[in-house]
Amino acid sequence: MGPLAQVADTVQVHLDAVESRITQQAAAFDPAIEGYVAYALGGKGKRLRPLVAILSGGATGPITSAHIDLAVILELIHVATLVHDDIMDEAERRRGQTTVNARWGNTLSVLVGDCLFAQALNLSTNFNKAEISRAIAQAARDVCSGEIIQTQRRFDLHLGIDDYQQIVEMKTGSLFAVAAELGAVINEADTATVRSLKNYGLKVGTAYQIYDDCLDIAGNESVIGKTLGTDLRKGKLTLPVLMLLRAAPAAERERYCQLIVGGKAEEMTDLLRTDAAGAPLSAAVEAGQNLIEEAQGELAALSASGYSESLHQLGDGLRELLDQLR
Amino acid sequence: MGPLAQVADTVQVHLDAVESRITQQAAAFDPAIEGYVAYALGGKGKRLRPLVAILSGGATGPITSAHIDLAVILELIHVATLVHDDIMDEAERRRGQTTVNARWGNTLSVLVGDCLFAQALNLSTNFNKAEISRAIAQAARDVCSGEIIQTQRRFDLHLGIDDYQQIVEMKTGSLFAVAAELGAVINEADTATVRSLKNYGLKVGTAYQIYDDCLDIAGNESVIGKTLGTDLRKGKLTLPVLMLLRAAPAAERERYCQLIVGGKAEEMTDLLRTDAAGAPLSAAVEAGQNLIEEAQGELAALSASGYSESLHQLGDGLRELLDQLR
Repeated sequence: MGPLAQVADTVQVHLDAVESRITQQAAAFDPAIEGYVAYALGGKGKRLRPLVAILSGGATGPITSAHIDLAVILELIHVATLVHDDIMDEAERRRGQTTVNARWGNTLSVLVGDCLFAQALNLSTNFNKAEISRAIAQAARDVCSGEIIQTQRRFDLHLGIDDYQQIVEMKTGSLFAVAAELGAVINEADTATVRSLKNYGLKVGTAYQIYDDCLDIAGNESVIGKTLGTDLRKGKLTLPVLMLLRAAPAAERERYCQLIVGGKAEEMTDLLRTDAAGAPLSAAVEAGQNLIEEAQGELAALSASGYSESLHQLGDGLRELLDQLR
Repeated sequence: MGPLAQVADTVQVHLDAVESRITQQAAAFDPAIEGYVAYALGGKGKRLRPLVAILSGGATGPITSAHIDLAVILELIHVATLVHDDIMDEAERRRGQTTVNARWGNTLSVLVGDCLFAQALNLSTNFNKAEISRAIAQAARDVCSGEIIQTQRRFDLHLGIDDYQQIVEMKTGSLFAVAAELGAVINEADTATVRSLKNYGLKVGTAYQIYDDCLDIAGNESVIGKTLGTDLRKGKLTLPVLMLLRAAPAAERERYCQLIVGGKAEEMTDLLRTDAAGAPLSAAVEAGQNLIEEAQGELAALSASGYSESLHQLGDGLRELLDQLR
């Protein structure tokens, strides 16, 4: 067994521990609530934030129970935001199952999200460094703030690519950034290493959101396990749309804007999928891939190990996923 | 100036500090979000949880900046739950102003509540004792859990008075309990004192919710500054309703149940207001007043001071408010 395969085995053991602690979280609630929380946590998520936290820990020292806690907390916050997102998007499917809102209504979903959030911050008081729980709370605040800015700017045709980047960094990059950063902070890594890993997380997380946004246009619903095409219907202008608008001549641009504002999401999606008008989907894919390259560049600061190599490979895997959408 | 007037002055100075720190919280957010947060926090709330935290601090030692932090955090959590409540209740008015949901819609309200919650838990990482932030996170979880149970049991005619008590203790009592408890914990008060103050907070908070529930039936909308009569319309069976159902003969009970399930909230409210069928409103008021008496009994464990006397007076004030609803 090569060194990378050994790392993969060790990481899997830790991810199993994360999974089992996630499952236990439901039991922290009143029996009347346990079922909802267990359902929300039980979807087949990719557990990417836990993976980044664990790999960052391994890349900077031992993987400890504090890393498992970190991974669980970040996933709880992530699931809380998904539950709330699904209310706002009126989504029906998520992670291969019916959404909490579709199953029990919006009222319960607001509260289940709040419960998950409270439990995350409850667990985060177990760290003996306030720095760690503070960084987590700030990341949670950034996620919500990014979502608010995104909501404000629905159907806003003046949204620039830089605005999009800010939104995506806040709503998705920040939890990946704090996963990578705190994985290293727990191991008391030096400042430069912590900074590099934080940047790695921010860039990989942002690239992942770009992938997710492209998927909403180019993906296959039955494979992905969630409702697609919701972004444009809800007025969220994602990178492929912005690339289309930027590349289009004035008259075409005017027509696209009318389609967006007029709620013709399907026509727009068809346009974007068929590579009309300057291959905007490819341009968005490329932007995501460039970010991954930058993220991988940050790893040069780490001492070489199976874990730093795995962080690199995580980028490669995401790059391939993006490639399939071109 | 007598000793109680002196305490009142000192408390006001601390409450002003709380108010000014609450106002500052909005500035912690991205400028795009600041306005919503400032609006949500700017309503004319009674700041009861901050008051209990400050008085509990004064009753057990010096009132420190940690007490101000505690007060601010608990008010942020409370406002977060109000913003989310108002979505679920489709309320239009709160604290004398248009609700966040009525002004900016449900999507933004979900997120603004989340932001307030995240900021509360961000501030709570400033305590140097994990015990304090843990108790706050657990109280926040109890509040959300209580709301879930309440939501589950809307229009549930099998809801008992003991179920109601559990819900109200969780959704309202818990934040008052933690305010009083931690006010003493910050001053390193002995275990018996901490326990007595926690019980005081739980009972006063529960009585306050009973008052609020009675107000929804017997209050005056223009005086209260929020939409009344929402509980029954939303299927929330509060104490006066439960008292009515318990006291009614079988045939009458059947008719009341049909009114509730049939959505005849106004007819039910008229019944409750006019003291038909066994004065259920008076019975609920009396239950609240008994709880206040129990809460005041807990104060016997404290050394006598202007602050413990003020905690006692807070109970007296609430008892008078209840009396006006008979």
